[in-house]
Amino acid sequence: MKRALVSVTNKDGVVEFCQGLVKLGFEIVSTGGTLHKLQEAGIKAIAIDDVTGFPEILDGRVKTLHPKVHGGLLFRRDLPEHVATVKEHGIQPIDLVCVNLYEFEKALKAGKPMEDMIENIDIGGPSMIRSAAKNFKDVLIVTDPKDYPSVLEAIENKTDNYDFRLNLAYKAFSTTGAYDAMISRYFAGVVGDEFPDTLNISLKKVEHLRYGENSQQAANKYEDPFVQKSLLDYEQLHGKEISFNNVNDLYGAVAVVREFGDQIVTAAIKHSTPCGVAIGKTGYESYMKAYEADPQSIFGGIVAVNYKIDKATAEEMHKIFLEIVAAPDFDDDALEVLKKKKNLRILKLKNLDAREAKYDIKYLEGKVLVQELNTKMIDEMKVVTTASPTQEQISDMEFGMKVVKYVKSNAICIVKNGVTLAIGGGQTSRVWALENAIANNPDKDFKGAVLASDAFFPFNDCAQVAIDAGITAIVQPGGSIRDQDSIDLCNEHNVPMVFTGYRHFRH
Amino acid sequence: MKRALVSVTNKDGVVEFCQGLVKLGFEIVSTGGTLHKLQEAGIKAIAIDDVTGFPEILDGRVKTLHPKVHGGLLFRRDLPEHVATVKEHGIQPIDLVCVNLYEFEKALKAGKPMEDMIENIDIGGPSMIRSAAKNFKDVLIVTDPKDYPSVLEAIENKTDNYDFRLNLAYKAFSTTGAYDAMISRYFAGVVGDEFPDTLNISLKKVEHLRYGENSQQAANKYEDPFVQKSLLDYEQLHGKEISFNNVNDLYGAVAVVREFGDQIVTAAIKHSTPCGVAIGKTGYESYMKAYEADPQSIFGGIVAVNYKIDKATAEEMHKIFLEIVAAPDFDDDALEVLKKKKNLRILKLKNLDAREAKYDIKYLEGKVLVQELNTKMIDEMKVVTTASPTQEQISDMEFGMKVVKYVKSNAICIVKNGVTLAIGGGQTSRVWALENAIANNPDKDFKGAVLASDAFFPFNDCAQVAIDAGITAIVQPGGSIRDQDSIDLCNEHNVPMVFTGYRHFRH
Repeated sequence: MKRALVSVTNKDGVVEFCQGLVKLGFEIVSTGGTLHKLQEAGIKAIAIDDVTGFPEILDGRVKTLHPKVHGGLLFRRDLPEHVATVKEHGIQPIDLVCVNLYEFEKALKAGKPMEDMIENIDIGGPSMIRSAAKNFKDVLIVTDPKDYPSVLEAIENKTDNYDFRLNLAYKAFSTTGAYDAMISRYFAGVVGDEFPDTLNISLKKVEHLRYGENSQQAANKYEDPFVQKSLLDYEQLHGKEISFNNVNDLYGAVAVVREFGDQIVTAAIKHSTPCGVAIGKTGYESYMKAYEADPQSIFGGIVAVNYKIDKATAEEMHKIFLEIVAAPDFDDDALEVLKKKKNLRILKLKNLDAREAKYDIKYLEGKVLVQELNTKMIDEMKVVTTASPTQEQISDMEFGMKVVKYVKSNAICIVKNGVTLAIGGGQTSRVWALENAIANNPDKDFKGAVLASDAFFPFNDCAQVAIDAGITAIVQPGGSIRDQDSIDLCNEHNVPMVFTGYRHFRH
Repeated sequence: MKRALVSVTNKDGVVEFCQGLVKLGFEIVSTGGTLHKLQEAGIKAIAIDDVTGFPEILDGRVKTLHPKVHGGLLFRRDLPEHVATVKEHGIQPIDLVCVNLYEFEKALKAGKPMEDMIENIDIGGPSMIRSAAKNFKDVLIVTDPKDYPSVLEAIENKTDNYDFRLNLAYKAFSTTGAYDAMISRYFAGVVGDEFPDTLNISLKKVEHLRYGENSQQAANKYEDPFVQKSLLDYEQLHGKEISFNNVNDLYGAVAVVREFGDQIVTAAIKHSTPCGVAIGKTGYESYMKAYEADPQSIFGGIVAVNYKIDKATAEEMHKIFLEIVAAPDFDDDALEVLKKKKNLRILKLKNLDAREAKYDIKYLEGKVLVQELNTKMIDEMKVVTTASPTQEQISDMEFGMKVVKYVKSNAICIVKNGVTLAIGGGQTSRVWALENAIANNPDKDFKGAVLASDAFFPFNDCAQVAIDAGITAIVQPGGSIRDQDSIDLCNEHNVPMVFTGYRHFRH
């Protein structure tokens, strides 16, 4: 007769599973609440203390941590000495372990106090899982209720071969690894350690993606369960499945939008770079301005907004090809209009104000740059010229910095009345970024516009090009050893310039 | 009398630690090899089986998994029922646990066969660590030999308070989390699961960085110990400490260089975008060409090469301000020249051919895009025009694709005779990328050059601009519904065009 040890926190399906095991000739050993549930269902299960000869003590803290259990799991069936040892000590083989763990993650999400969190750290469970998984050649380790049917089937059909068992063991160690990753990050939070010596990140696969950044790259979307509220939480209301590049672009779009707080704003993004951003008194106005800012690049792009989309706005969006429209909400008739395009991905943004995630991570072939998110915007608006900006110019400066922060460096942004006139980025020379932005928009009038730069001017060439184009105010972080050259030039032309103190490189 | 349980794989310092504990009034309980070592050193340690009343069995697989051990660790000293229970069962309190684990990682790095890997999965150790860490209020858990002195000191000075113990517990769970992360990724490799349902990544902090992408962002450099050979492995021979942006830029630079295999190549990078790349018959020739490709952007940039740098090349590099020079090797006199600049970071690249890392990861505030690295280059060089490219043009096409792959999308690259003439990237419109690249290099002659594009042409405007500029061959992935428009235009002008089949977006 084979023996199964069953001890679960999540009791879904455990009765049916054990009934199946009994039918297949197993006797069941069980503990605490699981034992009670099985007995209620009429399953003859043996109490763990009948196996160990030791009672369950300390409110269940010590139940299965016993050689009669772990010997029965760990002995190698292929070694005669091991077989003799277990026999000598009256240890009965255990052939299957069904365990799932105290729900630490659930307690975390429920915001339980530390004392409860500690109680939710399972000790006996991981030990059994790990013993069984180590000895997977001889022991089936079942950690997921979803696997109950396939395990019963495999035993019945005798297909519970090496590979089958290996895969269960793999899942088992993935489970214990994720469990202690979660606990260690919880402790990191408790002690306030932002950059742990050992940073354990356990990701859950949530979505298979058709492919990655390019079709030759396989890809999947994961979630870090430690981040409970994310800026990228959305519900897809309509359209084709989301692609890898969609998610990446969407992040750029919603991150720009988040910067604007209560202002009504529309951001259009292409290749993860803003191509048109505008504020407005209404959503419609802001969308129209963002669209007109660059009616070419928005084609095939992503639009994210922080307002409820109405029918009039939806009709304008419907006129062009967009990959995604993302908004916190939609009027019913607006949704109807948007849904006419079969493929258009319509996303309802759930947490546009989320700021829970802490890290920005660059994974470079095993070397990993981990930094704080760039949550800052402006340290201080310091006027460095004799001329002072008007209130309108100050508004456009703030607007420009919010946008240029999300353009790839070197980045510049030209703004007028809460609309981007031109955006230049991804250049290896700063003045090129500016010159290109102007050249790419030959029909635009930059007179009276504001120039925002993501980093300081190494020379006065940017100021010169800006002034030549009719730009009348400049905002930049400052900090170059040649700042004075640019200040002097601005003073000559009576152009106010403001230093913000925070650089916003984005690579 | 207090009791310490000591069972370590790494025995560094354990004798001194236990001597210290004995002096502080502890009695020592120990197991197997540790017990032997302590007794040899004259420390009166109690064998674990004297505590459990059960022998160490199954070649040490079962030693400490016993209620006499775990009861002694887990009982709550503040609950009278718990205290009564342990008394009743003759369980003695354990006040300190010193455990480190079987060296799974070391075995992995040594490339041991699976059977050995399985034996290196520690069961008893993690169980003790986790029991002690759960009950950290009452039990000191010591998992790192580096902590021995501070633990002894804290006990002696009675500063082993709640916070001290909490930090030890935090470290303990970090250790067990990392351990099972490593095991689960090993199993993922064994079963060939590239995208696990649970992807456990445990990172080790290797370097504090002064700041991140910007000075307002704290940052640290980590390593994924699962990647044993990385393209970014280097030894710093000289110069200022490496910055966050240095590492990020370096990655772009060495990744370009790696694409060239045996060809002698120099890549200059600024803001993680190539600004000058050239092959040559000698390192010197290749450097000079890469420099002359864009003598402006290289200023403050990074240079990576795949050859041993000689004195003549070093002298040229010395003439300009560079952040980093990275090479697999340096002549002694070349190093001498480069070291004259106090701050110049000189890096000796160790694994320029490494291709072990599998993932590219974008961590977007808790949502995580995990994709295969883009290791492909060209599927097939398919001539789609009536004119066929010459051998020289084919070489420049291949060269151009290797470079444009590392420029931010939309990206184009103009090449002639194995040198970049112009690079355009980071644009929201493809034709802008091309127009800007040409405009940024007004003194260059593009006659007879080759144009490479990271993605297909949505219209024939790129081909038109290229032909107008004197470009005589084009390479691009192909795949647009309007491909024929571009093909027709090329045919009209007798310009050969080749489709490669692989797009190379990089965002």
